[in-house]
Amino acid sequence: MAKKHKIKNLRIPGPTKLFPEARELMGQEAFNHRGPRFEELMRDVTKKLKIIFHTKNDILILTASGTGGLEAAIVNTVSPGDKVLAVSIGSFGDRFAQIAKAHGADLTILRYKSGTAADPKEIEKTLKENPNIKTLLITHNETSTGVKNDLETISKIAKKNKILFIVDAVSSLAAMPLPIDKWGIDIAITGSQKGFGIPPGLTMISMSKKAWDKSKKTKSNKFYFDLNIAKSALNNGQTPFTPATHQIDALNKGLDILFREGLDNMIKRHINAHEKIKKEVKEMGLKLLASDTDSSPVVTAIKTDNAGLIIKQMREKGIELAGGYGDLAGKIFRIGHLGYFDMKEIDEVLKELRKITKSL
Amino acid sequence: MAKKHKIKNLRIPGPTKLFPEARELMGQEAFNHRGPRFEELMRDVTKKLKIIFHTKNDILILTASGTGGLEAAIVNTVSPGDKVLAVSIGSFGDRFAQIAKAHGADLTILRYKSGTAADPKEIEKTLKENPNIKTLLITHNETSTGVKNDLETISKIAKKNKILFIVDAVSSLAAMPLPIDKWGIDIAITGSQKGFGIPPGLTMISMSKKAWDKSKKTKSNKFYFDLNIAKSALNNGQTPFTPATHQIDALNKGLDILFREGLDNMIKRHINAHEKIKKEVKEMGLKLLASDTDSSPVVTAIKTDNAGLIIKQMREKGIELAGGYGDLAGKIFRIGHLGYFDMKEIDEVLKELRKITKSL
Repeated sequence: MAKKHKIKNLRIPGPTKLFPEARELMGQEAFNHRGPRFEELMRDVTKKLKIIFHTKNDILILTASGTGGLEAAIVNTVSPGDKVLAVSIGSFGDRFAQIAKAHGADLTILRYKSGTAADPKEIEKTLKENPNIKTLLITHNETSTGVKNDLETISKIAKKNKILFIVDAVSSLAAMPLPIDKWGIDIAITGSQKGFGIPPGLTMISMSKKAWDKSKKTKSNKFYFDLNIAKSALNNGQTPFTPATHQIDALNKGLDILFREGLDNMIKRHINAHEKIKKEVKEMGLKLLASDTDSSPVVTAIKTDNAGLIIKQMREKGIELAGGYGDLAGKIFRIGHLGYFDMKEIDEVLKELRKITKSL
Repeated sequence: MAKKHKIKNLRIPGPTKLFPEARELMGQEAFNHRGPRFEELMRDVTKKLKIIFHTKNDILILTASGTGGLEAAIVNTVSPGDKVLAVSIGSFGDRFAQIAKAHGADLTILRYKSGTAADPKEIEKTLKENPNIKTLLITHNETSTGVKNDLETISKIAKKNKILFIVDAVSSLAAMPLPIDKWGIDIAITGSQKGFGIPPGLTMISMSKKAWDKSKKTKSNKFYFDLNIAKSALNNGQTPFTPATHQIDALNKGLDILFREGLDNMIKRHINAHEKIKKEVKEMGLKLLASDTDSSPVVTAIKTDNAGLIIKQMREKGIELAGGYGDLAGKIFRIGHLGYFDMKEIDEVLKELRKITKSL
């Protein structure tokens, strides 16, 4: 049996620490997903999600991981053979492209070196050179490398080219500025276990009119992720299939708490944590994976040959950090500062990290 | 706002009442799905699931509703154009057929009148007349009508015809006898919110060698529900995508409690509840939807023109019953006696039901 350490400071970029109120609702007795109580809950939570998405678009909640939400975006708008541009800056961007490929998309991929953001000019050039590309897939915040894309600039390019603009916002929504309607994002996908402070199990997806129109003409094989089925059920305050009732109730409450903090304060809290980590980590003599411009306000990736050892020693102190994915495994560790956290927890990470790096 | 009644006796056929220990684990703090603790949990829960499935086959856990599990079974083994026999005795059987159709199966459907079980002889005849049918889809327990299929007899027919035998066991597994290996079931799909006493959010799927072999040759577009991806991750004690960690931990504990009761005792408890309900409901002058032979030990459907009124009046007493689906809406109500419950709760339902039927 692996040695267990009591984790008191979960500093991975999701699942994140939970709102105490969310924990209470997660522990409640089962309830009917076909009764009046659930109908009211669905209407409530959908209204609140529209506020945090900054959108008038429909929002659907599916019982699945964020990856399921990404697949829903694809199968509802991409027919086999459709030309799609996938912009990837890391493992999650790669995954988005893989999903499109699995569903028969004719893919063009712009892959940037892990640790760097996408170049908007190159995206513009690619779209200009390939006028048949009708869909753009992009990750807002690449959790695997702690890099954010300049979505505001890219959104203007998407608009100019009148393409369907699909954004993986799994780790950015509710933590980074992402005004869906202002930026003209047709589909945004997020997950319960990141900025929302709720356990994993739900993916939330916004669909613009353009996305719905496209969905009516899309020829792809689907059922569970068919958003038109989800939409019909939502019109009656329901989900088509038995949902993760507990996560939905917890999300509804979690959103109240986010609103109490205020969206701007929430965004600032994430930036402040990131700035503090960057500054102190540099003082420790460690190197950041991403540049100052590219680095993400919700997760900081640090380059070191001692990544495995640092993660292990931090775990012994009750602090859980994240490692690297794919070719970054063993070469970076990541500090999550996403969702429900306060600066004391960040300070504790920095304090212990300072001790460990000194000893190495 | 709809009037809310405090439900103290949840008598729908899933989501079912939760094990107190499951509630505790559902309310725990978030934890890392990529750390050693989760790896150990995955190995533990998978081992225990094999016991309750009575199988040596692989079992995969996906974060989705049971419907997602049904889709996983289809997309991993049915290529577009494949001939499939779907046997339906109600809404969930219809859904299974719809999923296969959505993925391009060449379907033959045997649909029985809601309230009756499938005729094994007709299944045998259909397979004989259509030797190109390679796959059989069937619901073990039709939750929407409270009817069980004679799976033992049908399993012999499936074996004789060497077809891939796929069983929707969403509401039967852990509550009704279902020896996967003995009956040669290639794929069985269940859900966390039925016999297991855990909140919704997980589907568990067993895959035989024959099913895996078929999956290697299946041409279908899939990603999230690709069980070969899930299998590769499981070999490392992981899930490929962030799972509903809390439900998995609760399931692991819930299985311990099921084992403490004993599988045979558990099955008897369900039968005893059903027999008692049948007897007393008849004494009240009410009619059962299903015959004595066909009726399910986990949910009892009762015919009455007052279904809506009875559900409403029972809800006012804190008892939540289920209504009818599709053409049975308003014509039946259903009493769930599935998962974690004791006879006192059944007695309370019968007592209040007697009062209400007298007053009508």
